[in-house]
Amino acid sequence: MTLAIYPGSFDPVTRGHLDVVFRASKVFDEVIVAVSGQSRKKKFWLSETERKDFIERCVSGMENVRVEIFDGLITDWATKAGGSVLVRGLRAVSDFEYELQMASMNRRLNPEIETVFLMTQTKYSFLSSSSVKEIASYKGDISKFVPAQILDDLVAKYPRLDA
Amino acid sequence: MTLAIYPGSFDPVTRGHLDVVFRASKVFDEVIVAVSGQSRKKKFWLSETERKDFIERCVSGMENVRVEIFDGLITDWATKAGGSVLVRGLRAVSDFEYELQMASMNRRLNPEIETVFLMTQTKYSFLSSSSVKEIASYKGDISKFVPAQILDDLVAKYPRLDA
Amino acid sequence: MTLAIYPGSFDPVTRGHLDVVFRASKVFDEVIVAVSGQSRKKKFWLSETERKDFIERCVSGMENVRVEIFDGLITDWATKAGGSVLVRGLRAVSDFEYELQMASMNRRLNPEIETVFLMTQTKYSFLSSSSVKEIASYKGDISKFVPAQILDDLVAKYPRLDA
Amino acid sequence: MTLAIYPGSFDPVTRGHLDVVFRASKVFDEVIVAVSGQSRKKKFWLSETERKDFIERCVSGMENVRVEIFDGLITDWATKAGGSVLVRGLRAVSDFEYELQMASMNRRLNPEIETVFLMTQTKYSFLSSSSVKEIASYKGDISKFVPAQILDDLVAKYPRLDA
Amino acid sequence: MTLAIYPGSFDPVTRGHLDVVFRASKVFDEVIVAVSGQSRKKKFWLSETERKDFIERCVSGMENVRVEIFDGLITDWATKAGGSVLVRGLRAVSDFEYELQMASMNRRLNPEIETVFLMTQTKYSFLSSSSVKEIASYKGDISKFVPAQILDDLVAKYPRLDA
Amino acid sequence: MTLAIYPGSFDPVTRGHLDVVFRASKVFDEVIVAVSGQSRKKKFWLSETERKDFIERCVSGMENVRVEIFDGLITDWATKAGGSVLVRGLRAVSDFEYELQMASMNRRLNPEIETVFLMTQTKYSFLSSSSVKEIASYKGDISKFVPAQILDDLVAKYPRLDA
Repeated sequence: MTLAIYPGSFDPVTRGHLDVVFRASKVFDEVIVAVSGQSRKKKFWLSETERKDFIERCVSGMENVRVEIFDGLITDWATKAGGSVLVRGLRAVSDFEYELQMASMNRRLNPEIETVFLMTQTKYSFLSSSSVKEIASYKGDISKFVPAQILDDLVAKYPRLDA
Repeated sequence: MTLAIYPGSFDPVTRGHLDVVFRASKVFDEVIVAVSGQSRKKKFWLSETERKDFIERCVSGMENVRVEIFDGLITDWATKAGGSVLVRGLRAVSDFEYELQMASMNRRLNPEIETVFLMTQTKYSFLSSSSVKEIASYKGDISKFVPAQILDDLVAKYPRLDA
Repeated sequence: MTLAIYPGSFDPVTRGHLDVVFRASKVFDEVIVAVSGQSRKKKFWLSETERKDFIERCVSGMENVRVEIFDGLITDWATKAGGSVLVRGLRAVSDFEYELQMASMNRRLNPEIETVFLMTQTKYSFLSSSSVKEIASYKGDISKFVPAQILDDLVAKYPRLDA
Repeated sequence: MTLAIYPGSFDPVTRGHLDVVFRASKVFDEVIVAVSGQSRKKKFWLSETERKDFIERCVSGMENVRVEIFDGLITDWATKAGGSVLVRGLRAVSDFEYELQMASMNRRLNPEIETVFLMTQTKYSFLSSSSVKEIASYKGDISKFVPAQILDDLVAKYPRLDA
Repeated sequence: MTLAIYPGSFDPVTRGHLDVVFRASKVFDEVIVAVSGQSRKKKFWLSETERKDFIERCVSGMENVRVEIFDGLITDWATKAGGSVLVRGLRAVSDFEYELQMASMNRRLNPEIETVFLMTQTKYSFLSSSSVKEIASYKGDISKFVPAQILDDLVAKYPRLDA
Repeated sequence: MTLAIYPGSFDPVTRGHLDVVFRASKVFDEVIVAVSGQSRKKKFWLSETERKDFIERCVSGMENVRVEIFDGLITDWATKAGGSVLVRGLRAVSDFEYELQMASMNRRLNPEIETVFLMTQTKYSFLSSSSVKEIASYKGDISKFVPAQILDDLVAKYPRLDA
């Protein structure tokens, strides 16, 4: 049985992220979407609970997927969770070198955990959480970029971006 | 009649930017250099009015070019301005993937507006506003990097960088 | 009036090529799709007449587009044809550096002719004539990759690939 | 149960390839190393039988790995073999864009088959079959680049490179 | 006699940096490791004196290497120090374009100073000061990433990261 | 004393190559331009003697530079010649990954020999021997791309390209 961990900020989750979750759910026996906690230096728009809840609403139909919050080094956390694979999405237009750098570093930290890259659909290859937030901050239409299940609630949170 | 919009921060305008404006002015009937306004999260060195003024001094000889300040999503603004083309400069040494990502996103937001890439001269391929500012902050010589028309006034503003 | 030249081998024309032609036809007053002649060292699958005919069938609905065969340096040919712009397609997954190299070289050969890059739809970003030929050689289904107007005739020519 | 297919030319198999096979054997239930047959246009140094034999000697210790020869489209072949995953190695120094292009194309040909990328060890990131052949052709030392099990037999075949 | 300058932040020095210093010490007559001073906008973890001291402990065995702190433009500083070469490390997984941009800019600022790139060992190709700091902040094991001579003292400084 | 070897095909030598030779001659005590011999599989336009002669005419003013023909592995040849450094030119628009791959391979073959990368002028960043040959084959003007000393003789050899 292979348990795969898909770590990320998901601030907010996009259709591209969901595409990766769905593909991972077909390739691996079990998948945990691991949401990075607030303790990291990076400032998030949404709280870790909000980010986790948004993903949970979107993956409710995938039986072998669950969502958790992680802290600390992902390799340590994955080991404790019983995972042997880290999943990352590769976009045709992506920070490929950054991904390889993280994967190499993680392999040095724990050679037992393998990083596996899945390719997102090309129609999501331009999509990132930060571009979604930028469009939202201008009151632009983000309905093509985020899952329908969470669109209204995300839009309701827009004003916070201006605070 | 094709109206092309060339959006950017231009903080400050460089010889590379002007090279793109000049090329666009030959390819398209009319060109608007669209300076992004202060409301964006990004902190600028120069005010939007200063940035607009600096460009205007440099393009005064190009009859079909004018300079304006824009806010909000560039695709919305371009549509209101009557533009059908967004112009972006490609540098041999450039953030190519970032440009494609923006262009893809903008196409999703408004498929009627086409992004067109022009190549800057190779001698400007290393040039960016941020490197100009870094050199200026060390009292280095920026005369090869910014247009002659605005050099003295830019230099006079240096101290503000240390504030 | 801007006449744009879109040069290439088109061996065979793909849906990605057509996407670029269509975009160019909206941005520029007139467009010539320029098919490279047989005299070039490169071996082609289809004759120059076949390649020209295939494209013509696909662009018959675009009033400001015509197809011609060119020989020699494209910058010389474009000048004689009265063109001032060369069009090239940029794919998210593409040989970006090769395109910049060609554009730089062409600019050195004739600075009056500007190379302009248009972005293909991301769903065609993986598509190339050579991959179409490879799939065809294995009797694979190429219907999603080439225009419907020419599919049957292309398929009829498959056997020649095995010769 | 997930059956993963690792397709390639393996002309000859390198330590980098074996590294990918080993990683795949840990992540997936079963792995087939699929050696591309001679019918392809590409000229190979070694016959398909030789290439298959060399790999078999190297993977004899991995219980869930077997080696087969494939012809035609890999997506068709994988489906017939019952595989749902294609494995590809990503090298830090690699033709990343080519790999994405192939994966995109294969997804269009058969969306049921997922391409999964594994990262080779950085010490093999420069390694390719063609560089091994080039060094061998100059009587250079290839012992660090190919598996020990097949080194002598490969060296014995060197002269054929000069033919 | 060629004096080479190897500029950087070294916050902290990694095994990858030391690898570059060692290679430079073999290629050039004299090498100065130039540590960027605190006056730069960038916030550093370690003070400039700490960063200089850490490097000095690591290079004590290389007779033609010394460590100094620099301020202002590196091209100006290098000229005053009598250096004619700037050394930069290239990683297989690196910000290659950024390096070329800096080198081009520096050449424009002072054409007499040549930037020379050395390649780090592939096993350090994923390594950066910022990833070392991130791992340290999670109490991860950084012993493979930083020189043994300074490991304990670096670890002793960890808490400051949380401040 | 550092002897640097600059290996290549130089078929023919371009202004970009000469730029690298000149920079190397300032950085290193002695430089050998090493012309790859005919025995390699690659087909050359010019014989090895012609390529050597063309370079010699261009470097006659650089006292510490000489030209030689090499065969076999460049690392073996460099060692016999007493060289400790291999020089390679990096172009802003270049096959960076290929260069790193060769350098990594050469380091594995002989760790005593260091590969050093110099950056060509940005105005030559698009220039390659093959593009020079392509333009020449169409009777285009190559005077900006090859050294003046050899232009006439190169032009006189054009017809051979059609043979």
